[in-house]
Amino acid sequence: MDFKLDARLERDCILLGNFELCQVLLMNDANYPWLILVPRVSGIRETYELSGSQKATLMKESNFVLEAMAKTFNADKMNLGALGNIVPQLHIHHIVRYETDLAWPAPVWGKVEPKPYSDSEREAVVAKLNAMLSNYSGFESTAQK
Amino acid sequence: MDFKLDARLERDCILLGNFELCQVLLMNDANYPWLILVPRVSGIRETYELSGSQKATLMKESNFVLEAMAKTFNADKMNLGALGNIVPQLHIHHIVRYETDLAWPAPVWGKVEPKPYSDSEREAVVAKLNAMLSNYSGFESTAQK
Repeated sequence: MDFKLDARLERDCILLGNFELCQVLLMNDANYPWLILVPRVSGIRETYELSGSQKATLMKESNFVLEAMAKTFNADKMNLGALGNIVPQLHIHHIVRYETDLAWPAPVWGKVEPKPYSDSEREAVVAKLNAMLSNYSGFESTAQK
Repeated sequence: MDFKLDARLERDCILLGNFELCQVLLMNDANYPWLILVPRVSGIRETYELSGSQKATLMKESNFVLEAMAKTFNADKMNLGALGNIVPQLHIHHIVRYETDLAWPAPVWGKVEPKPYSDSEREAVVAKLNAMLSNYSGFESTAQK
């Protein structure tokens, strides 16, 4: 089965590129720097359904993203979540949190309406994230210039 | 530094035992079967602060819990989260979700007041979880009989 990104993730996010295992998506919500990793494996809903080597690769890619985002955006806290109650395709949220953000200290989901990036905001954050992600060996950017 | 469980986790949870890395806690909320893994490492707030071998052990323990809970409780979906906006000590939520539960499809946090287990409910769920967890090599139960 060929991997195909879920239609709702495609609509709500900006595709940044690919790690070895995961697609890297930027949630189109200017309220929080928010990346989503989607393992490019078909028919998977839970992390435990991945193979042993896929699990290890996901752990590496996910921890890289958490640490790099914390530093790049000077986060007060990183939030990690794999929920999938609405979008069944396995996807893992990596969200920069600040004690001053709109949802703090609650989780971000369902708290505040998403605020799409303006063109200039999107350009700036995508450039920043591309620079960050290119520190990961093998990351392939697919972002529009 | 010796590891000491956060006071709020101690108050809100029932200690079930220890994996090699993590303490295993049952959230005292009968609304959802809900386990929390707490790596027994002091001064850690984020998964990426763990060592490489600790990360690998956490991944193994976490995926075991996700898969075992999904099967034991016949989950519609597992929810995984590492938030820590309120309790700073690194702890990872593993929550059984049903399409019929009180918060579905929203995340559980902040949705419905926790409903503490009655004595007989707690006894039953702890026995079920102990049987489940004892399938993991090296799990040491500390639950009261």
